Amino acid sequence: MGWEGERSSSPSGSASPRSPCKRANLVAKRFFALDIATYKDGALPRVTKELLGLVASLVLRCDDCITYHMVGAWEAGATGDQLMEAMSVGLVVGGSIVIPHLRRAAALLDELEGTDEANRDRA
Amino acid sequence: MGWEGERSSSPSGSASPRSPCKRANLVAKRFFALDIATYKDGALPRVTKELLGLVASLVLRCDDCITYHMVGAWEAGATGDQLMEAMSVGLVVGGSIVIPHLRRAAALLDELEGTDEANRDRA
Amino acid sequence: MGWEGERSSSPSGSASPRSPCKRANLVAKRFFALDIATYKDGALPRVTKELLGLVASLVLRCDDCITYHMVGAWEAGATGDQLMEAMSVGLVVGGSIVIPHLRRAAALLDELEGTDEANRDRA
Amino acid sequence: MGWEGERSSSPSGSASPRSPCKRANLVAKRFFALDIATYKDGALPRVTKELLGLVASLVLRCDDCITYHMVGAWEAGATGDQLMEAMSVGLVVGGSIVIPHLRRAAALLDELEGTDEANRDRA
Amino acid sequence: MGWEGERSSSPSGSASPRSPCKRANLVAKRFFALDIATYKDGALPRVTKELLGLVASLVLRCDDCITYHMVGAWEAGATGDQLMEAMSVGLVVGGSIVIPHLRRAAALLDELEGTDEANRDRA
Amino acid sequence: MGWEGERSSSPSGSASPRSPCKRANLVAKRFFALDIATYKDGALPRVTKELLGLVASLVLRCDDCITYHMVGAWEAGATGDQLMEAMSVGLVVGGSIVIPHLRRAAALLDELEGTDEANRDRA
Repeated sequence: MGWEGERSSSPSGSASPRSPCKRANLVAKRFFALDIATYKDGALPRVTKELLGLVASLVLRCDDCITYHMVGAWEAGATGDQLMEAMSVGLVVGGSIVIPHLRRAAALLDELEGTDEANRDRA
Repeated sequence: MGWEGERSSSPSGSASPRSPCKRANLVAKRFFALDIATYKDGALPRVTKELLGLVASLVLRCDDCITYHMVGAWEAGATGDQLMEAMSVGLVVGGSIVIPHLRRAAALLDELEGTDEANRDRA
Repeated sequence: MGWEGERSSSPSGSASPRSPCKRANLVAKRFFALDIATYKDGALPRVTKELLGLVASLVLRCDDCITYHMVGAWEAGATGDQLMEAMSVGLVVGGSIVIPHLRRAAALLDELEGTDEANRDRA
Repeated sequence: MGWEGERSSSPSGSASPRSPCKRANLVAKRFFALDIATYKDGALPRVTKELLGLVASLVLRCDDCITYHMVGAWEAGATGDQLMEAMSVGLVVGGSIVIPHLRRAAALLDELEGTDEANRDRA
Repeated sequence: MGWEGERSSSPSGSASPRSPCKRANLVAKRFFALDIATYKDGALPRVTKELLGLVASLVLRCDDCITYHMVGAWEAGATGDQLMEAMSVGLVVGGSIVIPHLRRAAALLDELEGTDEANRDRA
Repeated sequence: MGWEGERSSSPSGSASPRSPCKRANLVAKRFFALDIATYKDGALPRVTKELLGLVASLVLRCDDCITYHMVGAWEAGATGDQLMEAMSVGLVVGGSIVIPHLRRAAALLDELEGTDEANRDRA
């Protein structure tokens, strides 16, 4: 997940403020730049890579990261059913300790579906 | 830990709301049903299985899961000393990163002991 | 990953023997059945779900699980470049501790590409 | 799990050699002594605490630790069905990444049941 | 991280209250005493050991533990640049899921630098 | 830990072969380059950063990574006592599940001390 730069349609200002960090040293800055590059279209489309980031974040149980990639996948065109199905893979791989994070992610999805879908990039 | 259905004597409404989730797909629903079945009496009594769930949740450091299984073990008849002893196993296995979760769990136990014990099922 | 039943084209007999386990109790048997169901075509195609299982396994650093899902994704039609790209997401999310598993997975991919591709199901 | 001192009936010499370690500093020595003390009879009987150690080890996916606590629980009188049931809790809490460890543990249990049960302490 | 006893210059009362816990059994009390002993000067100076505790806490993603060791390293004389560099090691080892914790730690560091540096022990 | 390039005095050829990987895509190559840069002298000396990498690897329980950073810290001038003390921090933070990795690391240290110390760079 990124450090600098906001998802355009982030539904909740309180989750994951990503204001620039003047503290980051060169290693950290290179890491953040690499992190952004990771999810660009390539052999796999961006939407699939955001789903991969989402499931990895879910099984590692990082709520801020889940929010970041759920918004990213949504903006890249993933449907609600696809997001839930991706997360059900994470549930089976990661077990019942994933449940609290899945519940919070489902609530975020409700919030996303209530926002203006015109922001979404389905090109 | 469960998704749907409340522990009867949950001392704190804010922790782990488990309202039904209309979003859950079939895989997730089957997982939730299996999760409920896991803690029924069997070769081991329910109280022991709740303690197992508690220690697993503690070493994996999931506060909502710790709350869920602590309440479950309490309702099934575990004493405060038994709960603390179970968690001391988790502390030694999982190390000092477990400490913040142990502190919060000890506070929950104080709260549980302050509730009406008549709710407990020691049958 | 499954307990019973073999991937048809598993390149390495020594990795992940999945012979039936007479020991599994009912909870475990239901879990194994659910695990199989998780990767069927749905809102997302099977190949994407195997990639999700692969990246989840990579960041959780389970070599047997990585092998299982790499073979599954390969059989479902993922290319070598797609597999490597999926795993590069896991590398950035999970960090340098993922590297030893990534190296072993890359060696498995070389092995897969050396087997008869006629076994693959790209339908 | 312990550093010094062997389980008496460890079925497999290759797993978990626990010969004394001259290298351990004072902090490590105190940790090892504490680890031994953790599993003594107390508010919970030793057999329950070994099962707690087993499930904690299973969800953290440490094969050597699983072996250590499975032998400990077995020596303290746990039955094969109880061991499998305890581990099924770990499977549901920890998810499918636990499966390879569960398979190896089930094989160890077969081995334990084939050894002289006279070694067991059921007092 | 400790259970009892406060860092003298903890900048934020809300993080990590460490009031004595009457509930702790003997195993837990011995663990807490050992935890305190771990970070004393030895073959490595205390400041290095606090940095080790910081990075271990960062990759295991325990915010309370990060706060505890960041304050400890600060009090022992670590500079802001050294703390950021130590954490950049944790970022590369632990991957992008570490980012939200790193951001919170950087904010804490700003807070620490704004407190009276006279509290620091650079002896 | 690195992907390409060998520690000069790696005592054991079987651990962590780091032959170049033609498979690595651009994201992976940038990650490997960043990983190498992370441990250079900076606000903290290289030896301290290798110790940080060692303890992070220990609590995350990655044997190949432990080997890599133990050799790196040794080459940078860390003594056996310092390595053991660093790892005792990891033991207390990470708990008893760290023990099997600590035992293997202690054996590696014996091996390192038996090699020609002339290979070490203490400049």
